[in-house]
Amino acid sequence: MPARDTYHNQVRKALINDGWTITHDPLRLEVGTKDVYIDLGAERLIAAEKAERKIAVEIKSFIGQSDVQDLKEAAGQYVIYDGVLEELEPERKLYLAVRQDVYQDLFAEPLGQIAVRKSGMRLVVFDSEKEAILRWIP
Amino acid sequence: MPARDTYHNQVRKALINDGWTITHDPLRLEVGTKDVYIDLGAERLIAAEKAERKIAVEIKSFIGQSDVQDLKEAAGQYVIYDGVLEELEPERKLYLAVRQDVYQDLFAEPLGQIAVRKSGMRLVVFDSEKEAILRWIP
Repeated sequence: MPARDTYHNQVRKALINDGWTITHDPLRLEVGTKDVYIDLGAERLIAAEKAERKIAVEIKSFIGQSDVQDLKEAAGQYVIYDGVLEELEPERKLYLAVRQDVYQDLFAEPLGQIAVRKSGMRLVVFDSEKEAILRWIP
Repeated sequence: MPARDTYHNQVRKALINDGWTITHDPLRLEVGTKDVYIDLGAERLIAAEKAERKIAVEIKSFIGQSDVQDLKEAAGQYVIYDGVLEELEPERKLYLAVRQDVYQDLFAEPLGQIAVRKSGMRLVVFDSEKEAILRWIP
C-alpha cells in the first residue's frame, strides 16, 4: 500500500491531467488564532461559464488500522474545512479525494452514506494507477 | 493531565449526580457491516413531561498534541454518531461532553464555533474536579 504522500502526488497529477491548475499546495487558512491546511487548492477556466472555478481538495488515503476511524477523521476535516471556506473563500468548493476502491467499499456502505449525508461531503474519485479523475460527486 | 479513562469516569459520575441513570457503557450500534460505539447511554425521567429522556454521550478529553486535530476528530465522531442515532434511535439525543476549560478555550474560538455550527453539535460542559454537569448547550 503506497504511503500518504504517494496519493497526494497522484491526486495532484490527476487534477492537472483533468485540466486544473494547482494554485496552493497546501492551501493555508487562518481562523482566529488557529491555522488550518487543506491539501490542495486548484483553479480551472470553465469556458462555457466564462468563469474561473476554484476548488480545495483534501486527500484521504484510508490506510489506517480502522476504516471507521478513517471515516470519522474524514468527516471531521470536511465539516470544519467547509465551514472555514464558507467564511473566508465562499466561492471555493471543497472536495474530499478518495480512491475508487475506497469509494466502492466504504462509501457505498450504510455508514459511509451516513457520513456523506451528515457532513454534506463532495467527493472526487480518482484512479491511483492511471492518475485520472473518475467522478465528481455531486 | 488525567488520562482518557479518568474523564470517562468523571462524566459518568457527573451524569449520575445530575439525576441520570447510565444504561449503556458503551452504547453499541450496528450499521450495515460496521459497529460504532458511543461512550455512554443514559436515561432520566422528566417529571414535567411525564416522559423518559434518552441521551448518548461521547466524551472528548482534548489531551492530544493538537487541539485543531482533536476538534476535527470530535466533529467527525459527532456527525457520524448523530446520523447513526437518527436512523436507529431517533428519540435519543447525542451530546459531546467537554471540560469547562476546553469549552472556554477552544469552543469560544472562531474555529470551535465553526465546528459546532457545521456539525450541529450539542455540548454538555462538565467540571472534572467536582464531577458535576455545568451546562447543556443548547
